[in-house]
Amino acid sequence: MTSQDRVTVVKMLKALIELQRLKRLDRTGWTLRGLPNGTESVAAHSFGVSVVTMLLADELAARGTPVDTERMLRMALLHDWAETRVGDMPKTATEYFGAEVRKRAETAAFADVIGGIGAAEALYRRLFNDYEERESLEARLVKAADVIDLLVQVLALERAGARGLDEFWQVVQGADFQLEGAALEIVGEVLQSLLGARND
Amino acid sequence: MTSQDRVTVVKMLKALIELQRLKRLDRTGWTLRGLPNGTESVAAHSFGVSVVTMLLADELAARGTPVDTERMLRMALLHDWAETRVGDMPKTATEYFGAEVRKRAETAAFADVIGGIGAAEALYRRLFNDYEERESLEARLVKAADVIDLLVQVLALERAGARGLDEFWQVVQGADFQLEGAALEIVGEVLQSLLGARND
Amino acid sequence: MTSQDRVTVVKMLKALIELQRLKRLDRTGWTLRGLPNGTESVAAHSFGVSVVTMLLADELAARGTPVDTERMLRMALLHDWAETRVGDMPKTATEYFGAEVRKRAETAAFADVIGGIGAAEALYRRLFNDYEERESLEARLVKAADVIDLLVQVLALERAGARGLDEFWQVVQGADFQLEGAALEIVGEVLQSLLGARND
Amino acid sequence: MTSQDRVTVVKMLKALIELQRLKRLDRTGWTLRGLPNGTESVAAHSFGVSVVTMLLADELAARGTPVDTERMLRMALLHDWAETRVGDMPKTATEYFGAEVRKRAETAAFADVIGGIGAAEALYRRLFNDYEERESLEARLVKAADVIDLLVQVLALERAGARGLDEFWQVVQGADFQLEGAALEIVGEVLQSLLGARND
Amino acid sequence: MTSQDRVTVVKMLKALIELQRLKRLDRTGWTLRGLPNGTESVAAHSFGVSVVTMLLADELAARGTPVDTERMLRMALLHDWAETRVGDMPKTATEYFGAEVRKRAETAAFADVIGGIGAAEALYRRLFNDYEERESLEARLVKAADVIDLLVQVLALERAGARGLDEFWQVVQGADFQLEGAALEIVGEVLQSLLGARND
Amino acid sequence: MTSQDRVTVVKMLKALIELQRLKRLDRTGWTLRGLPNGTESVAAHSFGVSVVTMLLADELAARGTPVDTERMLRMALLHDWAETRVGDMPKTATEYFGAEVRKRAETAAFADVIGGIGAAEALYRRLFNDYEERESLEARLVKAADVIDLLVQVLALERAGARGLDEFWQVVQGADFQLEGAALEIVGEVLQSLLGARND
Repeated sequence: MTSQDRVTVVKMLKALIELQRLKRLDRTGWTLRGLPNGTESVAAHSFGVSVVTMLLADELAARGTPVDTERMLRMALLHDWAETRVGDMPKTATEYFGAEVRKRAETAAFADVIGGIGAAEALYRRLFNDYEERESLEARLVKAADVIDLLVQVLALERAGARGLDEFWQVVQGADFQLEGAALEIVGEVLQSLLGARND
Repeated sequence: MTSQDRVTVVKMLKALIELQRLKRLDRTGWTLRGLPNGTESVAAHSFGVSVVTMLLADELAARGTPVDTERMLRMALLHDWAETRVGDMPKTATEYFGAEVRKRAETAAFADVIGGIGAAEALYRRLFNDYEERESLEARLVKAADVIDLLVQVLALERAGARGLDEFWQVVQGADFQLEGAALEIVGEVLQSLLGARND
Repeated sequence: MTSQDRVTVVKMLKALIELQRLKRLDRTGWTLRGLPNGTESVAAHSFGVSVVTMLLADELAARGTPVDTERMLRMALLHDWAETRVGDMPKTATEYFGAEVRKRAETAAFADVIGGIGAAEALYRRLFNDYEERESLEARLVKAADVIDLLVQVLALERAGARGLDEFWQVVQGADFQLEGAALEIVGEVLQSLLGARND
Repeated sequence: MTSQDRVTVVKMLKALIELQRLKRLDRTGWTLRGLPNGTESVAAHSFGVSVVTMLLADELAARGTPVDTERMLRMALLHDWAETRVGDMPKTATEYFGAEVRKRAETAAFADVIGGIGAAEALYRRLFNDYEERESLEARLVKAADVIDLLVQVLALERAGARGLDEFWQVVQGADFQLEGAALEIVGEVLQSLLGARND
Repeated sequence: MTSQDRVTVVKMLKALIELQRLKRLDRTGWTLRGLPNGTESVAAHSFGVSVVTMLLADELAARGTPVDTERMLRMALLHDWAETRVGDMPKTATEYFGAEVRKRAETAAFADVIGGIGAAEALYRRLFNDYEERESLEARLVKAADVIDLLVQVLALERAGARGLDEFWQVVQGADFQLEGAALEIVGEVLQSLLGARND
Repeated sequence: MTSQDRVTVVKMLKALIELQRLKRLDRTGWTLRGLPNGTESVAAHSFGVSVVTMLLADELAARGTPVDTERMLRMALLHDWAETRVGDMPKTATEYFGAEVRKRAETAAFADVIGGIGAAEALYRRLFNDYEERESLEARLVKAADVIDLLVQVLALERAGARGLDEFWQVVQGADFQLEGAALEIVGEVLQSLLGARND
């Protein structure tokens, strides 16, 4: 092991230790709506988004529109890493900080989390940026996956008796993920299917 | 009841419902350091700060330096109300957002929480501002109470087996609350006493 | 620091460490009704009562009936301190112990918690006693604040899906806080407003 | 089903629903010492006491001193039922209420919990009373089982990292369960074995 | 104490330490249905089953059909001990492992938990086996108690707001515990009474 | 949308709802060792494994040994899906069920979870099988990532005060992931680095 490799491994481990924190960091939205602590961690949500991402990508491919699945999975996994340093800010926080300020702060925090992590550091920064800016089709699909996972969670909570979560469903109305073709179609079908399941 | 009174009561109730959220909002610092969810809520911390504030104010009076206790208790109670909208941001978040930006955002959120709450609305804004700017002796004492409550909590957690909280004690070293006279003396004594209790 | 001062600070710290326990002590009423642990701590409730107290006092002043707000805030903050030693007894416990016995036990426990805490010790005992006996208008208003905070919490829990809490609302019917004039008017308005919010 | 039977079954169910509460009622002692909510419920403790009771009774029989195991198991199962109405009072509470007052209150609460439960109602009251008064050898052994289960729990918590529980071990020193012969011998051996396990 | 006795006590303590784990092991069924962690531990459920068992046995005796209550209480207490080693497997797990395989695994785990526990070791194995095979009337009654405790818990959760638990009630329809006479009658009455309480 | 597509989307949603359960399913290992509920969910662990997987794959590529990262990420994400039906069995469970039986049961449960999920169904089954059999280099690396995430979690828990977790570190001694070349080297470096961090 060269001394450069050693530094990389140490930094990698440092990042992994820091990212453990996401396993227990509660998604603030549930707490603020009166659900018990432990309802969903940021890590659990990232898992959910990654799973939805994989299913969407594979269904897209099945309908003849392949996307860069690896890139999407990477984005889904890392899109919330900045929260180890800035916390899970509720949606209302963005109103007070401004979307731009928040993006800048999270981008800087993300960069510090992965600082020195190895050869992929620059790639991770690009992926984070792509997701934040919704530049690629892949980024926009991961954003859709983020919302789908949120709604599946809401549905599961409601089925277990939770109330007061109506506002989340209003997202579906008029949500525009800037998709087209098969991507637009599939995401639309999943959202409709969710609404249908809720009304059962 | 005049219709103006009715509006005030409705707004007051709206604020109270929103502030309930602080009862379950976890203080992020503990979660990020691996302590279980439910370790301390923002409301519980605000209670602690208010209690320390009262004890400090009374001890100051006993030593011949009376302060405006009512003003201090009000400040202690309301200093974290903005967190219902921006969440409990960890200390590292301030590094990425900047102290000024954070203060501005929290001030705006606070103003919205208490909007229309009645005749005291302007007073609450002044108190919040005083605390944020540490303008008065009272505000600086409440800030000291904030730190003292934090350290008493750390001490209690450590006695129950928690580890990895050393960094909090470094705050004591070189903490400057811009106090003088009896205020400086009492706060110093409490902090020394805390350090002593820790080393028992 | 005189040696007397030193003793006072040590006792003050001892009390603060003991009062930390309220931050995690669950309000038994929720647990007994099947709500999850962590629903509300005694400290979080004390915070809520203090906040309601402040709003009530300020609204009273706005309507031309000033009260001793500082005294009220102190009472709201300390009214549950005895629970670090006797626990949060459910309402049914009082039926078996008797209100008088309970009051005596809590008064003795309170006295021990604050023993040697400094010059304000006697004041705290008087405030505790006033609250227990509802002697002053201030004490009766804090009791009303106690009930209002309870009902706001119930409302928040019900909105999040909790059921089986009807009995709390029956308190409103026929509650007599022995208030008159503006105090009676304001408390009545808040309770009506709560009932209205529940029926929305 | 006679109408008397119907009444009995309804009362039995009522008692069972009420006793469910013990499944989530936290043992206050842990909370007050800074351990997380959910550390141990009253029901889980009663299970532990019952298990220890069974093992002690069987070991006693093996050493030639049979006891009334069924009676002991019943006592172990029901000794904390009153807590659905008076809560899990911490040890310090007894200092303020007095042991006699507490016993009287819990006895009355117990009687109400089982009111109308069927033919065994009187037996349950006798068992509860025997346990409270430590009249029979069986009752004293169940009390020893109560302490043993407490210490096994302390040991398990300490092994998982908990601190600040030393006081529980002082119980062992000078504990006098008023046992003799094989009973004294076995309980002593278990306590010594616990101390040994702790010092490993 | 003979050296044989010493070995027995050490093994007994080892078993007790291991069984402590049941106090915090969540019943998986609740978690999988979206209820919060801490809803019910395996130990708390075992307590519930033991209590139901005692009430059923006593009511049977009152109706002129005495059963071996001690044997039943022992069975109720120990029927889930294997879970310290195999965990609380959800019902669906049995479909994939097969009932026979599961029984064999749990029987082996149970035997290891109690290995060397003393003279009663063989008895405990027989009781576990009887329960698994539902050989005796006593075993079948304990199984009925297991289901009754489950339903009482479901009822309590539903009353507190939980939803999505309908499937548990379908158990009542067509449940056959292979009972007859007074045993069949009483269990039937309790289940009907539960259904009635649910529909109130 | 063809009716075939509709069926696929409905099945996809059904799988997503079922997989939500992993977000709250506790990793049994922590509970059994006395750590509080909520320490780590299966979903949070899957997130951790996926993150480690990505870092390992990228470091491997950096050292000139590219692997199929997409395949690895997919495997990491789906390797615990069967737990929605069989639960998170502790390691000791495998001793009693046998590794083969467990694998068969989990494979069948996995197949049912993803039944009808779309064109990728067969691929998912192959990936699950590859992981279970450690056939490919990719599968073996994901297994290493599984262990690394476990140890990072242990390290984080120990730093927060947890004790009694030594056995996990013994895994490192003599762990053989059947890797060679750069893969063996990197995994070895990370494990050494973890041991080093622990001894700091």
